[in-house]
Amino acid sequence: MKQALSELQTRDLRHVWHPCSQMKDYEQFPPIVIKKGQGVWLYDEDDNRYLDAVSSWWVNLFGHANPRISKALSEQAFTLEHAIFANFTHEPAIKVAEKLVALTPEGLNKVFFADNGSAAIEVALKMSFQYHMQSGKTKKKRFLALTDAYHGETLGALSVGGVDLYNEVYQPLLLDTVRAQGPDCFRCPFQDKPESCQAQCIGFVEEKLAEHHEEVTAVIIEPLIQAAAGMKMYPPIYLKRLRELCTKYDVHLIADEIAVGFGRTGTMFACEQANISPDFMCLSKGLTGGYLPLSVVLTTDKVYDAFYDDYGTMKAFLHSHSYTGNTLACRVALEVLTMFEEEHYIDIVQTKGERMRKLATEAFCHLPYVGEYRQVGLVGAIELVANRETKVPLPSEERIGYQIYKRALAKGLLIRPLGNILYFMPPYVITDDEMSFMIETTKEIMEQFFWEREG
Amino acid sequence: MKQALSELQTRDLRHVWHPCSQMKDYEQFPPIVIKKGQGVWLYDEDDNRYLDAVSSWWVNLFGHANPRISKALSEQAFTLEHAIFANFTHEPAIKVAEKLVALTPEGLNKVFFADNGSAAIEVALKMSFQYHMQSGKTKKKRFLALTDAYHGETLGALSVGGVDLYNEVYQPLLLDTVRAQGPDCFRCPFQDKPESCQAQCIGFVEEKLAEHHEEVTAVIIEPLIQAAAGMKMYPPIYLKRLRELCTKYDVHLIADEIAVGFGRTGTMFACEQANISPDFMCLSKGLTGGYLPLSVVLTTDKVYDAFYDDYGTMKAFLHSHSYTGNTLACRVALEVLTMFEEEHYIDIVQTKGERMRKLATEAFCHLPYVGEYRQVGLVGAIELVANRETKVPLPSEERIGYQIYKRALAKGLLIRPLGNILYFMPPYVITDDEMSFMIETTKEIMEQFFWEREG
Repeated sequence: MKQALSELQTRDLRHVWHPCSQMKDYEQFPPIVIKKGQGVWLYDEDDNRYLDAVSSWWVNLFGHANPRISKALSEQAFTLEHAIFANFTHEPAIKVAEKLVALTPEGLNKVFFADNGSAAIEVALKMSFQYHMQSGKTKKKRFLALTDAYHGETLGALSVGGVDLYNEVYQPLLLDTVRAQGPDCFRCPFQDKPESCQAQCIGFVEEKLAEHHEEVTAVIIEPLIQAAAGMKMYPPIYLKRLRELCTKYDVHLIADEIAVGFGRTGTMFACEQANISPDFMCLSKGLTGGYLPLSVVLTTDKVYDAFYDDYGTMKAFLHSHSYTGNTLACRVALEVLTMFEEEHYIDIVQTKGERMRKLATEAFCHLPYVGEYRQVGLVGAIELVANRETKVPLPSEERIGYQIYKRALAKGLLIRPLGNILYFMPPYVITDDEMSFMIETTKEIMEQFFWEREG
Repeated sequence: MKQALSELQTRDLRHVWHPCSQMKDYEQFPPIVIKKGQGVWLYDEDDNRYLDAVSSWWVNLFGHANPRISKALSEQAFTLEHAIFANFTHEPAIKVAEKLVALTPEGLNKVFFADNGSAAIEVALKMSFQYHMQSGKTKKKRFLALTDAYHGETLGALSVGGVDLYNEVYQPLLLDTVRAQGPDCFRCPFQDKPESCQAQCIGFVEEKLAEHHEEVTAVIIEPLIQAAAGMKMYPPIYLKRLRELCTKYDVHLIADEIAVGFGRTGTMFACEQANISPDFMCLSKGLTGGYLPLSVVLTTDKVYDAFYDDYGTMKAFLHSHSYTGNTLACRVALEVLTMFEEEHYIDIVQTKGERMRKLATEAFCHLPYVGEYRQVGLVGAIELVANRETKVPLPSEERIGYQIYKRALAKGLLIRPLGNILYFMPPYVITDDEMSFMIETTKEIMEQFFWEREG
């Protein structure tokens, strides 16, 4: 049964092709027209509100239409909105670069700006490749990535991704990436427990590196959480061992902290928990607190120096986007980084994370179909399964995550599952009451849904 | 001799890696720190001002820190900065989509949002490819592009580019694109004149299509101006004949109007001058008047319909970026499109274009080393050559364009040549006096430079 559409919904569907959507689904479930945001809430045209438990695709940190950030953006707009960033610069970009260098692991001293996560990944891939070409290691033409990895959707970024849903149809257009089996703690092939895990599964990577290291320029990884794969979490020891392998086999390590950076995992950056420095770190999403597209790639002086030479040697990194170093986005990022300093958000994430763990564990762990509740920092995930013992997945054609998503929206909660994995990645300003509402509502819907399904 | 650096310049060089730059050049020519913008002018930390004759990489339309656009952006920031764009929407995106559909050539009815030009190109390439896969034309796995094309720098976009400066080092990572010789009116292989040209050189494309059409999914082109190649201009008849070929050989036509759209060529879109509708049109840069990264791909109902099916068929276009449909950027774009309607900028571009043509023709056409002054709309280019008769290029290692660029900045003029092609692509708000300053200053510098060079 089709719903009656509002005028704006009708107009939307006439011309807008939405991302990551089968548009036919919108016949039954038309797009919700948002007119304002405040804190964790999005308000639609009928004044219904939705708790944005996914931070609008993991970007929002300090709430929607945050007055402090909006004020900074507004002032910048009336002063300087943007200037070409080749041979030109501006104070917001300089300060953002300084703060990022200070905050990220040791050795990451240079900052290259881009517009979104995919572009940051492409920059890191191209830099790593060109570095090796210019350093005489001209066999290094391939990248190594993990199964279930997600790094974005431009063709280079997609090539290192390993989630079939996004990649499969495009295979003929993608690079021939060396693929190693990644960590899978929920279905650990060695029956290890996180507490005692020594990352035995790093052996899958070592095997591939032993075979291919001469042709591999970089290994790319999402530290601590393979997010788009379904919030698959793994312990820091894995990263530590991966760093050792990259050093041993002389390949770069690219840390894609686009989703996990800026406090999500309970530390400013996930790499901190393993006490490692990658050769490249890609950041975006939370960098602007959910306001504007902006990304950066941080790298080492060693990489930078390999491109630093007389112009005629043609060693420069000539990558650019028109809006590279966009002044407005940099000003917003500067405000976000300043708020981290002044408002102690890392402490807040840790405190709220503990509370979420307690509430969610009590709410979900004993429900049928819950294979696991897992959490790192303020990211929590429920893995639904057909059978808790065998961990057999639920049939994907039932689209259970999607059904739960629709029911949650009807109750004012925006969760957007990844297949049959429900997850919470709320803005850091979520209050205790809002968190309770998020957990309780999810629980009620799940109970109701599975009760009806068993019918 | 190194210049004394300001504090901000020192801090910039410590951590910022600038786009499209050999950073060693900055030793002699440190980055200029911009603190504010107004109209066509950028002001540095010492209050020197620079006329932004390249619209900050071709993005600015209505002047820097334009009060009307800044006000719209500011109001939006305090209302709704961004919301997830899958299953959600907002009025600015809807209105932008409607206006773009109304303004672009007939048949382009669907609008897919992305963040920057490169991402828009990747979207068009992926959509065209997937369309053919899902329509049973599974041999169509390659793209056809022109020599000297530029379409961006993520690996997919770079694969269809044909400018060695950006591509060469990355060849092992790029797609195997079918390359056809593009138009070259300055050195026309048929000795044609633009007035009488019937685009005989389209034969180079037809030859490739005749041979490869079964494996080609789309032809991609920059309509009327191959911009990054050095503002190479060609007449509309070429586009008309290309459209006929694409139809004849059943391949998509992708029009990359990222640089030439939004009035630069004297019409809202360059395709209008050839009276053609492409299957895909990519837009960015001027879309937000130079404020924020945002891009769109417009396509036809026919393409959209090939993806429209039950979810289980897996025909959806699952591409997304976190900030797809960013509310702030859409609100800015909406203001820009409204200003086009209310403030008659297409007429303004045409009037100012005529004046620029007159001034520039008088100033440059009789100077030594000027092979040609060419212009379309409000884009004008001077092609410097060693010999006006033989059109032999100047030696690239002298970096003459770069020398002139530095001298122009010292006189308050920001032109940033493409090799030895100097060009003007000013914001549409440039006044008569400012245009005279731009042309006269360029002329003086050229005269002085070549006089010294002949020393």
